[in-house]
Amino acid sequence: MPEPQLVPRVERHAEAVWHGSSARGSGVLSAGSSGAFGGLEYSEPSRIAAPDGQTSPEELLAAAHAACFSMSLAAELTRAKAPPERLSVRATTVLDEVPGAAGHRIVESIVTVRARAGVERGAFDEVVRAADEGCPFSNLIKASGTVTIDAKLDEGGTADGD
Amino acid sequence: MPEPQLVPRVERHAEAVWHGSSARGSGVLSAGSSGAFGGLEYSEPSRIAAPDGQTSPEELLAAAHAACFSMSLAAELTRAKAPPERLSVRATTVLDEVPGAAGHRIVESIVTVRARAGVERGAFDEVVRAADEGCPFSNLIKASGTVTIDAKLDEGGTADGD
Repeated sequence: MPEPQLVPRVERHAEAVWHGSSARGSGVLSAGSSGAFGGLEYSEPSRIAAPDGQTSPEELLAAAHAACFSMSLAAELTRAKAPPERLSVRATTVLDEVPGAAGHRIVESIVTVRARAGVERGAFDEVVRAADEGCPFSNLIKASGTVTIDAKLDEGGTADGD
Repeated sequence: MPEPQLVPRVERHAEAVWHGSSARGSGVLSAGSSGAFGGLEYSEPSRIAAPDGQTSPEELLAAAHAACFSMSLAAELTRAKAPPERLSVRATTVLDEVPGAAGHRIVESIVTVRARAGVERGAFDEVVRAADEGCPFSNLIKASGTVTIDAKLDEGGTADGD
């Protein structure tokens, strides 16, 4: 099979169906492009109080940023001839009130990375910086908020066991 | 049970685990806050070529925007004393090259809404505008791109059958 070619423009869609008032209603999400998920419930209580088994827009953005960052970091490590054995990325989306804005805003994404890859610490820090600069979701969030990154190599991740 | 109170700051997190090079590796996502999803696969081919049953950061953002918009619209309709019977929201995330930017960017979200609610067309248009202004994800995307909205009342959606 040929390698996939990077096309300039990519579109992906998803569907939400909501019933009822904002406080007492609820909705269901499905992945329109891939079919990878469906029947994912969300509601106002799950969003602003306890998640209680239901997802939220903020949790989905956290998943999107974690996925995007991991792919961007894998690409930079591959470019540095050190494709990762394993990357573990957690993203935390922060929704908060902002002075002067009506309603809440996405103010921050906190990214925690643990990497197992054959690269030294100094090179790794540079690779993480490049991964952040190239990740479309880091750029999306930085346009109105902050991206905070804590990235470390796993012990035993480099060739000399450091 | 008491109504949930809107707290100023909300955090939601998710996890990604990636193995291998950018082109041939793949990752798995899970919902860290709610547990609502897990084992969701993603890869570079699914992101830039055919989705093929795997999700992508862009599809997850589409789900987040669709969910956020539906909740914001439900809130505005509830405020207008016309809580919706049903809202159907599709969001399409567009990833594209941008002149001067390294790599791709999220350039647009296209939102299509069909609403069944007891509100007249003129009032509905105003409610949709307010929903967009109040939706944190519309604001996130507008900080660096465009949000395009096509919103219609279902036939039979208003009290007079219009």
